Amino acid sequence: MGPELERLILLLGKLPGLGPRSARRAALALLQKRDSVMRPLAEAMAAAAEAIRPCSVCGNLDTTDPCGLCADERRDRATICVVETVGDLWALERAHAHQGVYHVLGGTLSALAGQRPDDLAIEGLVRRVAAGGVREVILATSATVDGQTTAHYVAERLRESGIALSRLSHGVPVGGELGYLDDGTLTAALASRRPA
Amino acid sequence: MGPELERLILLLGKLPGLGPRSARRAALALLQKRDSVMRPLAEAMAAAAEAIRPCSVCGNLDTTDPCGLCADERRDRATICVVETVGDLWALERAHAHQGVYHVLGGTLSALAGQRPDDLAIEGLVRRVAAGGVREVILATSATVDGQTTAHYVAERLRESGIALSRLSHGVPVGGELGYLDDGTLTAALASRRPA
Repeated sequence: MGPELERLILLLGKLPGLGPRSARRAALALLQKRDSVMRPLAEAMAAAAEAIRPCSVCGNLDTTDPCGLCADERRDRATICVVETVGDLWALERAHAHQGVYHVLGGTLSALAGQRPDDLAIEGLVRRVAAGGVREVILATSATVDGQTTAHYVAERLRESGIALSRLSHGVPVGGELGYLDDGTLTAALASRRPA
Repeated sequence: MGPELERLILLLGKLPGLGPRSARRAALALLQKRDSVMRPLAEAMAAAAEAIRPCSVCGNLDTTDPCGLCADERRDRATICVVETVGDLWALERAHAHQGVYHVLGGTLSALAGQRPDDLAIEGLVRRVAAGGVREVILATSATVDGQTTAHYVAERLRESGIALSRLSHGVPVGGELGYLDDGTLTAALASRRPA
């Protein structure tokens, strides 16, 4: 195995979801699809590295700044959905779940990982709200301890602005079978039960 | 999400082990490690696509032809280990299990997948053996129906050359617990038991 190949395998192994073994398998697959996948992927990667930047307004990744979502006149700019990561933003967009705009925090507060408020894009959010025109901020952080702590902290920071603050509801996932759900979800679903 | 990003995710999803969801996650991770991973990986991929070719003797992938293993004077050229894929060759090399040379078939015979003898590098192997200097061919194909069929076919093709033909032994994997083994392996391990 030449140094080119070893380097390729080493770098592929840094992708999430690929360990050393699957990186080797991926390298082999690439070499077997040299013209249909390997060269185009190398070019797409170089092009994306060049073109894609974080949006200075919301933190989304796009080729334009402000990003396509922030620039879109049809989106409701009075409703900001606060998410932890760009991946979460994409998930909500795929589901067409939100018609407003976003704000990407860049993670959660975490005592364990040493993530402090200054490490997240919280100041930018406070400034966006202070600039006016915002009616509601939806705190769409994860239903984890760190996610909920973060939502709580952000809510406190925005409290005096007087705008509406909301969180995602907890409950049984759509299509979820009760028998497979964890106790926390079951308890939350029961506690926030609604009239049938 | 711009077209550059969509194209990157689409191409990443063609890697084995990455589905559409994990391709998105990988694209995000790449964009977050633009200089340490994304650009180097793009370059490593382009460089490998340019430099790495199949060895005309054994089918291994390397930057030289013949490959490093075929060119290595210290390897025993009288012993050819026949494997299905370059990945299998790498696995044997990682284990330092074989001191001879290799021959990569490029798959197995398969009635289902329509893989016929002409689709595999069997003629090349027959010619290597006919050229002389080979003492033994080890048929290191998978312990699957297709793998064993292929080994059987290759053995028949080499039978009249008069050289020694061997196969890998079946048995309990090193470190394997009996309780977790399948019936086929247990039966094989018992049938090929050896004096203690």
